[in-house]
Amino acid sequence: MRYIRGLRCINCNHLNEVSIIYKCENCSGILNVEYNYEKIKKDSKKILTNKGIWKFKKLLPVRQNIKPVTLGEGETPLLEIDKIISKNSKINLFFKVESINPTLSFKDRSLSVALTVSKQFQVDKVITASTGNTGVAAAAYAARASMPCTIFIPKDTPKEKLKMMKLYGADTSLVDGNFSDAYQKANQIAMKNNWFNLTSTFLNPYAIEGNKTLAYELYEQYGGVPDWIIIPVGAGPLLVSCYKGFKELKYFGLINNLPKMVGVQAEKCSPIVEAFNLKTKNVSSWKMKEKTIASGIADPLELYPEDGTRTLDTIYESGGEAISVTENQIKYYQKLLAEAQGLFVEPSSVTAVAAIDILTERNKFDYSKQSIVSVLTGHGIKDLDVLFD
Amino acid sequence: MRYIRGLRCINCNHLNEVSIIYKCENCSGILNVEYNYEKIKKDSKKILTNKGIWKFKKLLPVRQNIKPVTLGEGETPLLEIDKIISKNSKINLFFKVESINPTLSFKDRSLSVALTVSKQFQVDKVITASTGNTGVAAAAYAARASMPCTIFIPKDTPKEKLKMMKLYGADTSLVDGNFSDAYQKANQIAMKNNWFNLTSTFLNPYAIEGNKTLAYELYEQYGGVPDWIIIPVGAGPLLVSCYKGFKELKYFGLINNLPKMVGVQAEKCSPIVEAFNLKTKNVSSWKMKEKTIASGIADPLELYPEDGTRTLDTIYESGGEAISVTENQIKYYQKLLAEAQGLFVEPSSVTAVAAIDILTERNKFDYSKQSIVSVLTGHGIKDLDVLFD
Repeated sequence: MRYIRGLRCINCNHLNEVSIIYKCENCSGILNVEYNYEKIKKDSKKILTNKGIWKFKKLLPVRQNIKPVTLGEGETPLLEIDKIISKNSKINLFFKVESINPTLSFKDRSLSVALTVSKQFQVDKVITASTGNTGVAAAAYAARASMPCTIFIPKDTPKEKLKMMKLYGADTSLVDGNFSDAYQKANQIAMKNNWFNLTSTFLNPYAIEGNKTLAYELYEQYGGVPDWIIIPVGAGPLLVSCYKGFKELKYFGLINNLPKMVGVQAEKCSPIVEAFNLKTKNVSSWKMKEKTIASGIADPLELYPEDGTRTLDTIYESGGEAISVTENQIKYYQKLLAEAQGLFVEPSSVTAVAAIDILTERNKFDYSKQSIVSVLTGHGIKDLDVLFD
Repeated sequence: MRYIRGLRCINCNHLNEVSIIYKCENCSGILNVEYNYEKIKKDSKKILTNKGIWKFKKLLPVRQNIKPVTLGEGETPLLEIDKIISKNSKINLFFKVESINPTLSFKDRSLSVALTVSKQFQVDKVITASTGNTGVAAAAYAARASMPCTIFIPKDTPKEKLKMMKLYGADTSLVDGNFSDAYQKANQIAMKNNWFNLTSTFLNPYAIEGNKTLAYELYEQYGGVPDWIIIPVGAGPLLVSCYKGFKELKYFGLINNLPKMVGVQAEKCSPIVEAFNLKTKNVSSWKMKEKTIASGIADPLELYPEDGTRTLDTIYESGGEAISVTENQIKYYQKLLAEAQGLFVEPSSVTAVAAIDILTERNKFDYSKQSIVSVLTGHGIKDLDVLFD
């Protein structure tokens, strides 16, 4: 891995060696893969070739001679939206359609990297906690890699997602609680048995790197840097990684400016938005009172509020926004998206569309000059009942 | 449309003008879009650029100044299969994963073209008969084009597909019968009201052209011509159009040989396979006795056996095969595909995988030299109950 320097702690700055660790060995902080960008920069012209996320292999934390575990993830469409979905018809709007990845969510980017890294480290077994999409992706990529896979999910996870995990042959366990409870269970068992933990908060420093490829693709497809990027967030690894990807492109001299990042949560589970609105530095865990239909981003961050803080830091740094969306708004925009655009996405993803009108009402966008990308993270077909309850 | 010559009748050879017609004005034969290949040939170097199926716009029956109705269809992955799915482990096998098109089936290719043509002809309303996937795609692309859409489907169509059509805002009617009954209803109403009929047998000569892009992509991704291409067939428009695409590439001088085309049907509805096995010239309509779980290809061709004959002709011409698959084989390979490869496809698509072992047993493949592509036409998530009955 001549392009990888190590795992840098975002807390104490200690550079950890590349191995199966999840926290800084010095202070237990969140880890971030650091690359030898000088070396990459010299080769960067050669890097942006080939197909799918693996055309960016040199920017991912794997040895160059390892064969990727791939199902054809990435290179999803960037659609121009020229009809009124926002209340402002002059909007310069695009949707990045992550819902048509192989297992129908953006998680395929990180799980393709995670299972490739699993092969590289020659682990025996992988495990993950999930609200559904990570579990489906983990099960599929584990099957493709012939790797045994165990998944912990909240018991109210949409039945379609559970059925898919089982079909791919994963060992599934329903947890009587929310995502944070599933997180704790998976973590305990991973530690005890020394299984590789793929949980897609900021826990696994390798898996999360797959999300960076979203930035590279937006750069290629849009032909530069969109002014605003709107992303649904639970803990927020996609938002943080996407921003990291753009910062890398800037370092390489390919772009001059960075996008403003907007994180969107469901009002019923919005720890990051609460901190943003209070203008605090740190995110606190959320006390779940009622369930949201946006199950994919229903993460109260009970054991790891620092993951939310990492996302909040990125939003602040980018000059972005944090927005929450009501259940009624989610239902309204889900139907509108299908009827007006032919796009069927899950409730979590809809939040990134509802946010456009909210930011418009708050006069956050300069329509004469600015471009907006909403990321549609997962397909609606994996949570069909929510529409017909 | 300087690249389009007209609609050639495959029966009497009459060249019909480009307009909304479905049958030859001279003899009522099946129509085939004919291009001015000499003109295209001069430009062919320039044609293979851009993204999605619309990078092949010059080879599609639309005016070049018309903006495509697109949801980002095409450019689906071609996966190398290096683990044993076939009983012969030395097989040189690839899957073309059409299941991750925008509405989760290959139909998006033809419906994207069909709705673009609808705009070009300035029709008021579109209509289609469907076993499910065409209806879902028609509803989504009609929504994207702001075009009213009516769909006739058999009453036992998977409920997920019906829900999707409704969500996209289409007007849906359940028919008490099979696909041929739905075909008749849609056809009557289309004729009476002068609505544009998108039914994806060989009825609509424009829509079917979208399927050709499968050949262009296989040529690009494989880097040439695979020896065998295995495709699930109802009436068979995908198989015929794919072959047409390869013949065009040969004409352009880009390739020297053509693939052998294999059509696969469910044993319980296999009019084309029956004719192939009897070595007859013409396909006869099928008498449905029992339902097959491969609902997407359950077409008895009751009113249009000539459509099956067109597909049979192509199979004969290519030196290919026609194969039928049992219900048990479909169930077995659906599970195997998910567990061994992380691929979840609908029963119709599974037939193209089951066929590999059948052809292997019949010693049809020369494994030392030949390459095989199976086309996985639709996602399993749209027909989830079939697995857990």
